[in-house]
Amino acid sequence: MRTLFALLALMVPLAALAQTPAPYTSPEVHADRKVTFRIQAPRAAEVTFEGDWLLPGDKPRLTAGDKGVWSVTLGPLPPGVFIYSFKVDGVPTPDPLNPDVKLRARSAGSFVRIAGDTPAFWDTRDVPHGAVEINWHRSAVLGQTRQVFVYTPPGYAKSKRKYPILYLMHGRNGTAADWTQAGLINDVMDNLIAEKKAVPMIVVMPWLHALPFDAPLMQNNDAFADYLVKDVVPMIEAKYRVRGDRANRAVFGLSMGGTAALTIGLRHLDLFSQIASYSTGGGKGDIEQRVAAALDHAAETNSRLRLLWIGCGRQDTFFAHNEALAKTFADRGLRVTFHPTEGVHNWTLWREYLHETAPLLFH
Amino acid sequence: MRTLFALLALMVPLAALAQTPAPYTSPEVHADRKVTFRIQAPRAAEVTFEGDWLLPGDKPRLTAGDKGVWSVTLGPLPPGVFIYSFKVDGVPTPDPLNPDVKLRARSAGSFVRIAGDTPAFWDTRDVPHGAVEINWHRSAVLGQTRQVFVYTPPGYAKSKRKYPILYLMHGRNGTAADWTQAGLINDVMDNLIAEKKAVPMIVVMPWLHALPFDAPLMQNNDAFADYLVKDVVPMIEAKYRVRGDRANRAVFGLSMGGTAALTIGLRHLDLFSQIASYSTGGGKGDIEQRVAAALDHAAETNSRLRLLWIGCGRQDTFFAHNEALAKTFADRGLRVTFHPTEGVHNWTLWREYLHETAPLLFH
Repeated sequence: MRTLFALLALMVPLAALAQTPAPYTSPEVHADRKVTFRIQAPRAAEVTFEGDWLLPGDKPRLTAGDKGVWSVTLGPLPPGVFIYSFKVDGVPTPDPLNPDVKLRARSAGSFVRIAGDTPAFWDTRDVPHGAVEINWHRSAVLGQTRQVFVYTPPGYAKSKRKYPILYLMHGRNGTAADWTQAGLINDVMDNLIAEKKAVPMIVVMPWLHALPFDAPLMQNNDAFADYLVKDVVPMIEAKYRVRGDRANRAVFGLSMGGTAALTIGLRHLDLFSQIASYSTGGGKGDIEQRVAAALDHAAETNSRLRLLWIGCGRQDTFFAHNEALAKTFADRGLRVTFHPTEGVHNWTLWREYLHETAPLLFH
Repeated sequence: MRTLFALLALMVPLAALAQTPAPYTSPEVHADRKVTFRIQAPRAAEVTFEGDWLLPGDKPRLTAGDKGVWSVTLGPLPPGVFIYSFKVDGVPTPDPLNPDVKLRARSAGSFVRIAGDTPAFWDTRDVPHGAVEINWHRSAVLGQTRQVFVYTPPGYAKSKRKYPILYLMHGRNGTAADWTQAGLINDVMDNLIAEKKAVPMIVVMPWLHALPFDAPLMQNNDAFADYLVKDVVPMIEAKYRVRGDRANRAVFGLSMGGTAALTIGLRHLDLFSQIASYSTGGGKGDIEQRVAAALDHAAETNSRLRLLWIGCGRQDTFFAHNEALAKTFADRGLRVTFHPTEGVHNWTLWREYLHETAPLLFH
C-alpha cells in the first residue's frame, strides 16, 4: 500500500503544486479609477454585485463573457478602500481571486483599494508604525475564550510610559479583526500620531457578539456590556501600560458598536469620560432606557463628560434615527455634538469619523 | 433632498439592521462527530464539497433539500480543526453562515472544529496565554509595506528576558495569518510551554508571496529569501527581545514554506542552526542546487546544525518527493531526520509536526 502511494506520487508532476493560473484578473483598477470586477461562473444564470459604497437598492449586474467570466465595470470611485462581494445565482461569495478578504460574521467579502494622487490619511506612509496584538483571554462572564485586538502606538515596545486607552467597537456583521482589516486602525493612528494630530494611545478592539449572531440586538448589547466592563477592561489594563483613570479612558463604536459605546459609556461614567457613536442603529427607546440615569442627571453627566459625539451619514438608512437621538439627548440637557456628514453606512465614513474624533481625545 | 432621505429613513423599520435569520445552520457537528454541511443555493444545479482531510479525488456532492438548502453529512471526523469549502456550479465559496473563515491567497475557506472527549494539544486550555502581534514594516528589498505576525510567549510583555526565535513559514495558498488562523500557533505553543515541553520562544510568521501569486515557485522562493534575511530578521530582532545568535534561531516551514526553510536555512548557517521542513513541494533539483554548498561540505554543515528535520504524510502527493530528498541529503552525508507519518497535505498534519518539533528547539 505504501509503495502504491509512492508510485502514484511519482506520477504526479510536481508542477501540480502550482494551480492553473486563472484566465482573468479581479479586481482590476483602471487609471481613471474605474474598476472592473470579474468572477468565473460558467454555469450561472445571474451574477449580481454588492459594494459598500452603493446606495441601498443599487445592485449592478455582471455580464457573461468568454470562458464563463462575468464582469462589470463601476466607478470612477474616489480614492479609498471599499468592500464588495458577488451573488452568483443568489449565493453570496467573496472574490475568489482576491486574497484581501473582509471577515464578517456572515458571508465574507473582498476589499478593493483605490489609490489617490497623494497619500490619504488611511494609506500606509513612511512613518513609525504601531502594531496590532491579538490577545486570547478567558471570559468568566461568558464562559469562553475570546479574542481582543489591541493597537499599540509606535515605540510602545521599547517605551516605559503609560498611555491613555480607547475601547473601539465594530458593527453587527463584523469581527474583532474589523477595525484592523477594514478600519485600517494602524495606518490611521500611525499617521495621526506622526502628524501630532492625536496623542499616542492604545486602542482596544473586542469581539461584540457575546450571544449567537441571531440573538436580539439589545440582549446581545447588554451581555457584551457586562463582558466588556468585568472581563476586558481588567484583563487589558493589567497587561498593557495604561494610565488607568477615567480621564484617560474613552469608548467609541460604529453601528451596533455605536449603541454599545453610548449605553456602556453613559452607564459607566466612573470608567469613561469620552464617548462617540458612529451611525448607531440601536433602537432610540432602547438606548434612552439604558442611559436614563445619565439623562435624568444631565448637569452631573455633563460635568463628568469630556466628549459625547454622535455622527451619521445623511444617506444612511439610520440617519433620521441618529438625528432624533442626538436631539433627545440635547433636549434632555446633555452637551452632545451631532455631526451629520454626507455618506452611507460604510467603512469609508467610519474611517473618516475615527480620523476626526481620535484627535479630540485625551487633552 | 435631505428631507426626502430623512423621510425615507423613518419608513424603514429599525429591525432592518437584523438580517433575516438563515433557515438553516452550518456546519452542524453531531454528537457522534459526524458533521452536516449546508448551503442555500436554490438555483444551483450542482454543489460539491472540498475538505482538507479528504484524499485527492474524493469530492462529496451535496443533495438539494427544502428551501434550496443543499446538505451533506460526512464523518465521523477525528477531533481536530478542518478546512472546507463549497463549489456551487463550479464557483468556489466559503460557508456563508460560518464566521470562522480561512484566509487564503485564492478562494477563502471555512473552519470546522471537532471537540474530543479531552482537550487536545491545539485546544484552548486554562493556561497562561501568549499573544500574536501583527507588525507592518517597509521592505526595502520588495519596495512595499508588508505584514509579519509574531507570537510572543506568556509573560513576554512584563518580562525582561531575551528569547530564542523561530521563523515559521506558511504554504502557497496561505497568508501571514495562516499559522495563527489554521496552525493555532498560540494554543499549541501556550500548551507546550505550560507543560514545559517547549522552552518559551518568539515565533515569527512572515508573508511568503514576495512576487505575484502566479509567479514561478522557485523565483518567488528566492525573492522571499532575500526579503527574509535582509528585511524581516533585522526589523524583528531590533524590536523584540531576542538572544540574537544562531544557536537561538530556527527556520521551519510547510509546503512552499518547507522549501523556503530548507533553502534559506542551509544557505544561511551563519544565521540558523535548526531547520525543519513539513511536506515540502519544491522541486528536489531546485532545492539541491540552492543548498549545494551545504551538501558539498557535509561535515562542516553537520557541525553547525543542531536539527535538520524533514516530515511528510504518506498520503500526501509529495510523499515520495520528500522521501527522496531526505535520502539524497543522507547519502550526501547530512545528518537528517526523516519523519514519515500517516496523513495528507493539511493543517492537521502541520499542527502535529509543530507539536513534535517545537520541543526539539533551543536546548
